[in-house]
Amino acid sequence: MKKEAMELPSFSSILLLLLCAFTLAEVESVYFPGIYQSSLKKNGKTVKPKIPYKSQYFPQVLDHFTFQPKSYKIFYQKYLINSQYWHKGAPIFVYTGNEGDIDWFAANTGFMLDIAPKFHALLVFIEHRFYGESMPFGKHSYRSAKTLGYLNSQQALADYAVLIRSLKHNLSSEASPVVVFGGSYGGMLAAWFRLKYPHIAIGALASSAPILQFDDITPWSSFYDAVSQDYKDASLNCYEVIKGSWAELNSISANDEGLAEISRHFRACKQVHSINSARDWLWEAFVYTAMVNYPTEANFLMPLPAYPVEEMCKIIDGSSPQSTKLSRAFAAASLYYNYSQTEKCFKLEDETDEHGLSGWNWQACTEMVMPMVVTNESMFPPSSFSYKENAEDCKKQFGVAPRPHWITTEFGGTMIEQVLKRFGSNIIFSNGLQDPWSRGSVLKNISSSIVALVAEKGK
Amino acid sequence: MKKEAMELPSFSSILLLLLCAFTLAEVESVYFPGIYQSSLKKNGKTVKPKIPYKSQYFPQVLDHFTFQPKSYKIFYQKYLINSQYWHKGAPIFVYTGNEGDIDWFAANTGFMLDIAPKFHALLVFIEHRFYGESMPFGKHSYRSAKTLGYLNSQQALADYAVLIRSLKHNLSSEASPVVVFGGSYGGMLAAWFRLKYPHIAIGALASSAPILQFDDITPWSSFYDAVSQDYKDASLNCYEVIKGSWAELNSISANDEGLAEISRHFRACKQVHSINSARDWLWEAFVYTAMVNYPTEANFLMPLPAYPVEEMCKIIDGSSPQSTKLSRAFAAASLYYNYSQTEKCFKLEDETDEHGLSGWNWQACTEMVMPMVVTNESMFPPSSFSYKENAEDCKKQFGVAPRPHWITTEFGGTMIEQVLKRFGSNIIFSNGLQDPWSRGSVLKNISSSIVALVAEKGK
Repeated sequence: MKKEAMELPSFSSILLLLLCAFTLAEVESVYFPGIYQSSLKKNGKTVKPKIPYKSQYFPQVLDHFTFQPKSYKIFYQKYLINSQYWHKGAPIFVYTGNEGDIDWFAANTGFMLDIAPKFHALLVFIEHRFYGESMPFGKHSYRSAKTLGYLNSQQALADYAVLIRSLKHNLSSEASPVVVFGGSYGGMLAAWFRLKYPHIAIGALASSAPILQFDDITPWSSFYDAVSQDYKDASLNCYEVIKGSWAELNSISANDEGLAEISRHFRACKQVHSINSARDWLWEAFVYTAMVNYPTEANFLMPLPAYPVEEMCKIIDGSSPQSTKLSRAFAAASLYYNYSQTEKCFKLEDETDEHGLSGWNWQACTEMVMPMVVTNESMFPPSSFSYKENAEDCKKQFGVAPRPHWITTEFGGTMIEQVLKRFGSNIIFSNGLQDPWSRGSVLKNISSSIVALVAEKGK
Repeated sequence: MKKEAMELPSFSSILLLLLCAFTLAEVESVYFPGIYQSSLKKNGKTVKPKIPYKSQYFPQVLDHFTFQPKSYKIFYQKYLINSQYWHKGAPIFVYTGNEGDIDWFAANTGFMLDIAPKFHALLVFIEHRFYGESMPFGKHSYRSAKTLGYLNSQQALADYAVLIRSLKHNLSSEASPVVVFGGSYGGMLAAWFRLKYPHIAIGALASSAPILQFDDITPWSSFYDAVSQDYKDASLNCYEVIKGSWAELNSISANDEGLAEISRHFRACKQVHSINSARDWLWEAFVYTAMVNYPTEANFLMPLPAYPVEEMCKIIDGSSPQSTKLSRAFAAASLYYNYSQTEKCFKLEDETDEHGLSGWNWQACTEMVMPMVVTNESMFPPSSFSYKENAEDCKKQFGVAPRPHWITTEFGGTMIEQVLKRFGSNIIFSNGLQDPWSRGSVLKNISSSIVALVAEKGK
């Protein structure tokens, strides 16, 4: 299931993004790629929540938008709840879960907890359908497009609407104002929820939510340009070394002994089967580190030092000028994979995806089509995007083609900022400018109540 | 398929409503009940459009909200277009079709045409899926809940969004402002479209649109109270005679010879099989006439004189005091069925529904649940509403149960007026107060741009 590096620029394989720790958003989130899902989960589950949550399971309807007999199927949607600060009538803070285990998001979410006592808020974290325990077809949920077909953002928003309404009713607290919170994809959901269900949520905090990353709203090169800029800002030499490393990698692969040499070079636990494994391994280290470039030591995706991009560049800049660019890039990438110095070798081809198909890959191959390209100015190998090829790839992978313009039809495209200005209110978009995903989010105040919080040095 | 009279208060069997000819809305519309659908169509098709329209067929996706392989099925959605007043960049006026043949709505819509020349507007009438020629499964579209499952308001709104976006693209007129127009259910769709797709339509005219007729927003008795009030306003005696006629009808049915006597009494072409046929026949005449109580002779549902409610009451008031209440009620109802004096006998049990199941009955049995009751103060036999019984009836009829709170979850319930005030804009709700459906619509200005146009004597 590992994808070719040359395809990485498509959103489905970009994999991860992370929120700005320094903006309002300690609400943290990540795009779960299939191939990293389980390891992320493992990491995630080691994090304990700061306050205790009770797990509940809500009988949710499979398909809100058709009335076929099978659309009435009920599945149990998990949500977490903590009422230690709450009293009836006080606000309800709802985290609109994204592509992963809800416990993991709850454990990594700070801001909601920080402000809950002040507002006497009820805290609710709702798991997104088809993630974590909220599997409509149990272990068969990912079997094919027939089951996965029900995994999409509009069904998720409707789930949240139905669950919140029911919860308020059961708590006899219909007058409680509801505020939704979310990060990255969960942030998009929070913003969209406020737009589509203003009668249910009075406001939203959408953190690192690239709602402008669709169609032609944001330049397709912006994501990789931003990653490259982060490295360039740390050190021009660093950027140039990484940029030059790909050609060296390609030239090794031209040798008969290429794979063996690569395997040695990358300290692979087992000899790799494809040069692409090494390319992916490097690529991911640089992209993910740019997304978690926190100013303190942290362990969200991987244990990392403060300012890990800068640390990577120090490794590159401090290496012997005689060493190859590839070996310097490898040394930098090793910081990402082995800052804790526990790895004796690297699993370049270790595929630990439990599902075989990932939920996010499915979403990216149906509605969440975010076109991305890598230009010559980037530090990554150039890459283009074609709707046609993307459709062919998705069709091959899942049996169905994407609907690449659906999100902008449903939620607004180039007009979305005007729509937000005219109709939206009470939405905070928080972003850290160093976060490559911020380029697809809202970075300017749109009105007095559609506010952008931007941390220039924030991630 | 004819329903029992005692069930009539449920919306699924109320059948028809009609717009106010005197408000802004010459946009006319009707709720098509299954059992009346074909006769209405026949009537409708005799009306010629005032300007010529070109019929087009748009390849529409079956299910916008799931990505199963079969949700990608394409059907051809009909729309009518006239560009005689239009130039590129000028506005596009879109009629959001409701439960019927789109030609019939186009032929009965005046206001859009009247203002089109002034705005140089393109005129577009989009047929609602599962009506007219826009049948996703051809002649099998109404076969069962498996096919009908795709018939609902959210899919229809998404159809309109996709079609309008494509149309603007093909016309290279992306900047054209779009205004949506609709009456009754089409009016609800227009208002909801403006709320959910503000990036696509800049405004809506929602005529006789009972968006408040759901859940507990509007008193359940309001519809029949309004019908009764119309008759009471015409003449207190008239109201009392009709109110007293039902008991007489019941007492006849207690005789052995009851059905034969009823058949003679009602000049039935064939002997009726159930007393309910006569009850329905009377009931419908009084309800429908209240809905089309125009101040001029008209032929929308049936040929009728000006102020037909008043004319009915003149018949009742002018009858011999010796005649029974039932015979006077019959005479009044005959005005509705035979104003043109072409009928020699009445088809009390003539079932001409082509589909067996009607589209609107399906919608009323799934999401469009508008609870209604008849109180003792009404001129109709008292009747209650129970969600449980309604669910059982619908389950029996279609195999699936209604989701009676879904519309208010999706579009807003008791909060909807506040939501409109806060988030809505550019919506005109036009109503005639004599129209019993006006009770479930918006009758007060909500803000400077959510405006209620109310014609006190209007229908």
